[in-house]
Amino acid sequence: MSGDVILLAHGSGGKLGQDLVENLFLRHFDNPTLLKLDDSAVLPIPSPQCPAASTRLALTTDSYVVSPLFFPGGDIGKLAVCGTVNDLSMSGAMPLWLSAGFILEEGLLLAELERIVVSMAATAERAGVQIVTGDTKVVDRGSADRLFINTTGVGLVPPGIEIAGDRALPGDAVILSGTIGDHGMTIMTQREGLQFDSPLESDCAPLNGMVGGLLEAVPPGSIRCLRDPTRGGLATALNELAGRSGSGIQIDETAIPIRDEVRGACELLGLDPLYVANEGKLVAIVTPEAAEAALTSLHAHEFGQGAALIGRVTEAHAGRVVLRTALGARRVVDTLAGEQLPRIC
Amino acid sequence: MSGDVILLAHGSGGKLGQDLVENLFLRHFDNPTLLKLDDSAVLPIPSPQCPAASTRLALTTDSYVVSPLFFPGGDIGKLAVCGTVNDLSMSGAMPLWLSAGFILEEGLLLAELERIVVSMAATAERAGVQIVTGDTKVVDRGSADRLFINTTGVGLVPPGIEIAGDRALPGDAVILSGTIGDHGMTIMTQREGLQFDSPLESDCAPLNGMVGGLLEAVPPGSIRCLRDPTRGGLATALNELAGRSGSGIQIDETAIPIRDEVRGACELLGLDPLYVANEGKLVAIVTPEAAEAALTSLHAHEFGQGAALIGRVTEAHAGRVVLRTALGARRVVDTLAGEQLPRIC
Repeated sequence: MSGDVILLAHGSGGKLGQDLVENLFLRHFDNPTLLKLDDSAVLPIPSPQCPAASTRLALTTDSYVVSPLFFPGGDIGKLAVCGTVNDLSMSGAMPLWLSAGFILEEGLLLAELERIVVSMAATAERAGVQIVTGDTKVVDRGSADRLFINTTGVGLVPPGIEIAGDRALPGDAVILSGTIGDHGMTIMTQREGLQFDSPLESDCAPLNGMVGGLLEAVPPGSIRCLRDPTRGGLATALNELAGRSGSGIQIDETAIPIRDEVRGACELLGLDPLYVANEGKLVAIVTPEAAEAALTSLHAHEFGQGAALIGRVTEAHAGRVVLRTALGARRVVDTLAGEQLPRIC
Repeated sequence: MSGDVILLAHGSGGKLGQDLVENLFLRHFDNPTLLKLDDSAVLPIPSPQCPAASTRLALTTDSYVVSPLFFPGGDIGKLAVCGTVNDLSMSGAMPLWLSAGFILEEGLLLAELERIVVSMAATAERAGVQIVTGDTKVVDRGSADRLFINTTGVGLVPPGIEIAGDRALPGDAVILSGTIGDHGMTIMTQREGLQFDSPLESDCAPLNGMVGGLLEAVPPGSIRCLRDPTRGGLATALNELAGRSGSGIQIDETAIPIRDEVRGACELLGLDPLYVANEGKLVAIVTPEAAEAALTSLHAHEFGQGAALIGRVTEAHAGRVVLRTALGARRVVDTLAGEQLPRIC
């Protein structure tokens, strides 16, 4: 383990976080489902008396500690529903039910809590999921920062769907559903009090509808992997996929969609947009034959209008992600090493 | 809503908490499953092509914010596994899978985190459940109090099991599985730095094995309701059952098991043990015919050796709980009104 105390970087989605997962959680909570480290655990429910009725459950959890609680494009409640719906969707599951656990700091305004609850309810309705069970704890003033939310989601994985981080094969297309960095730079500029001519807005959105359309638009088995590039950004998500599958990934810098204002904010603050969090985007690794149909399907959805083919899975540089820059140079894009931005989600 | 800010009493399991649930969460997260307010949501997974294979899922969530993190008889990790396993068990479900979401404060000792993770793993193994997915967030120093854990549990409800808070009928037996107040008074005395000749110990334990034995020991349908009397204690759990079922409940003070040292600590601190939290006890409402077999089954289990028949469900005083005192007087035992003890679980 690195050091002997928890650092902010342990929560960044980068290397220290992976260290914590591998050397602490996986070591003690040792089971094959957890070991897969996909966005959701996929759990078989066998039906011995009727094998055709066997189902697979997807289960995923996330705690949300974003600061500020409200930001352009969303709030902690919308984020808590979208993030968990999206993690289920990345396993190909149809999200059905959420739990919601609130940790409230004494003194939180009830009006703020209500605004967040209303936002969660609206987002859940939009995503077609139900919040079916919950819990509320209150801690004394100073023992939490206003409000934390855990949402845990349950979905069903339809028969025939096999999507997992280790399924990428050389030649597969790497598709990104839209611009990167919108969520992270919105939070960052809010926190820093920066003003821009065209204000940034979080991309926070439930992606289950778009994923459902994508799965219908291509032959069964064509979608090999799905990831939402949240904490640690696109670079970290691609590194996870390369690592899990044992293949390389090559991406083209010029193909990666990014808004001018996000690029500008990144330059101003010295951040690499490849590492900035997204909350309404996905990476799909797709068989070469299905790439065009996948893009067409994404383009038809409001959250996928900016979808682009950004690269390929390769045999070369197995386990690593290589970026071809605008100038034609190649550089390795590693997993996020330190802490880029705490409390982004 | 009472007042305009969150108070510690909103998290006590008592009246203000109910107010929050009814006037905020239920109003916005409006769906029939949540409305039942049982310890777990029970969710049907239909199997149209093979109705016999239809299953029912149980889902429950709890965040754990107990202070101190370590206490005689357990720690926050053991509590986080037991509490969620027990909530699943109270719906008659077999607990199978847990998620674990950690919110860590920057500066937490890794050695403490590891001790807690080891305890969670050992408790999960003992309960026969797997921790299959997780999440870690880190917040800056001062934005949380060392460590909070959310566990969300999934179980399957076996066919034929129908256990819910609204099923109690007049004449049913009210059984308590052992002594009350052990967990709450352990935390309280630790926090106050009180010393006793025979030290208190939390009763924190996974009850799924005991519940499984109980369900096998009696005819199908004999167990009408199960509750674990956690926050708000026995009084609050019984009030919930009386309220849900629209029946009265009468209990005998002299029949309620309580350790002398717990009674002594309660007297010293001016607390009513009926309102003190338990973490390894259950209340079962059982048909009159099955009461003896239920008690025998509980007595045979290590966590049920102190089980006792403590009262009956009545037609009289519908929706209320009445205590017959040691002196033969009767008094209404209401839901916890204020905050007895924050951060008990």
